[in-house]
Amino acid sequence: MTDETAPTTAAAEPPTPRGEQTRQHILDTAMRLFRERGYAQTTMRAIAKEAGVAVGNAYYYFGSKEHLIQRFYVDSQAEHRAGAAALLARERDFATRLRGVLHAGIDVLTPSHEFAATFFKTAAEPTSPLSPFSAASSEPREAAIALFRDVLEGSTAKVDEELRPELPELLWLAYMGVVLYWVHDRSPGQAKTRQLIDGAVPLIDRAVGLSRLRVLRPITREVLHLIRTIRH
Amino acid sequence: MTDETAPTTAAAEPPTPRGEQTRQHILDTAMRLFRERGYAQTTMRAIAKEAGVAVGNAYYYFGSKEHLIQRFYVDSQAEHRAGAAALLARERDFATRLRGVLHAGIDVLTPSHEFAATFFKTAAEPTSPLSPFSAASSEPREAAIALFRDVLEGSTAKVDEELRPELPELLWLAYMGVVLYWVHDRSPGQAKTRQLIDGAVPLIDRAVGLSRLRVLRPITREVLHLIRTIRH
Repeated sequence: MTDETAPTTAAAEPPTPRGEQTRQHILDTAMRLFRERGYAQTTMRAIAKEAGVAVGNAYYYFGSKEHLIQRFYVDSQAEHRAGAAALLARERDFATRLRGVLHAGIDVLTPSHEFAATFFKTAAEPTSPLSPFSAASSEPREAAIALFRDVLEGSTAKVDEELRPELPELLWLAYMGVVLYWVHDRSPGQAKTRQLIDGAVPLIDRAVGLSRLRVLRPITREVLHLIRTIRH
Repeated sequence: MTDETAPTTAAAEPPTPRGEQTRQHILDTAMRLFRERGYAQTTMRAIAKEAGVAVGNAYYYFGSKEHLIQRFYVDSQAEHRAGAAALLARERDFATRLRGVLHAGIDVLTPSHEFAATFFKTAAEPTSPLSPFSAASSEPREAAIALFRDVLEGSTAKVDEELRPELPELLWLAYMGVVLYWVHDRSPGQAKTRQLIDGAVPLIDRAVGLSRLRVLRPITREVLHLIRTIRH
């Protein structure tokens, strides 16, 4: 897997601790400015100035504002995995694992809720490289799908054999649905998103279990066929 | 039902044919400029100039750019209903009616596909009055839900009695999902959206039919309970 956010001039060299520190400082400053002023209104020049580094230095670490967001995605994804690790090591029940991973994802996103509401219009634009479905977002997307593969493979769930290889991506899509709801959630502390997770997990768990029933197999096939057809 | 887009100074007077013509001309000009230059980049002043009317005259008909879009929503909704009318008068089968209404909706939207991709970021912003879920959009939203109520009530479908009153809004939500997919659909002529409709309708039809089965009733209840809980 290539690290798209690494500066091309130094891609082969491991970052020095000092370099890593500067990179993190620029990223933190950028995210703060995006929150305070809005993504579109914040220039690389302003980020460099606020971070106290030369503009050229900022560009050395991040080729563009988009690279900053992509790094934010990658970091959030790593944090999500770390937040779910203990649960995934301990639990074997599919519904418990799924519920834990969904809550862990929202835990990581929670400090960014205000930012997400304003940033959403940029990420949701169909042609944006910052869309979670874009080619540029493939690294954090694949990592996220792999996390849902762990949810499934480490569980005792019995799943229809045709559904099994597709299920991790479907679970990730469901998670994207939860995030879409969370962005719009104006209940205090986004409590309704938590209720959505708690209510949806038993239904998903039941649907996954039912997929193996012989009488329902034609429906499973039909759903899978539809998903393959409409995949972009 | 009040007409929010009517100028407040003349709300009680019916529009003259001449006035209606001017209003339509301003709306058509605005939609063309939104397509060509983008929504955010187009001012009321530019719209008035391009339409060949005084700025004050443009404001007489439309209090703001948002009012122009709200009028576009209302008109599109009326066109949607008109496009589906013949089918709804003729067919009694639930799946046929639903399929026809979903396709009719996309028919109406198709000429605006390019505009929709750029406009989406404005309408999708959680706090925007132009969101289909906003208070300001309640008129076209209620009209759209009423159309799906017709789909159901004019059909021979047998539906669980607890599900029946909620189903029109759920069908409208499914339609919003189709529109979300359509906005992102880059297949030629948005052919994949048509496949999504054709593939999803039999599944929805089957789910509605199954809702009456005694063994599945607890699941129906659970789904309805979840939806009521998470409704904003």
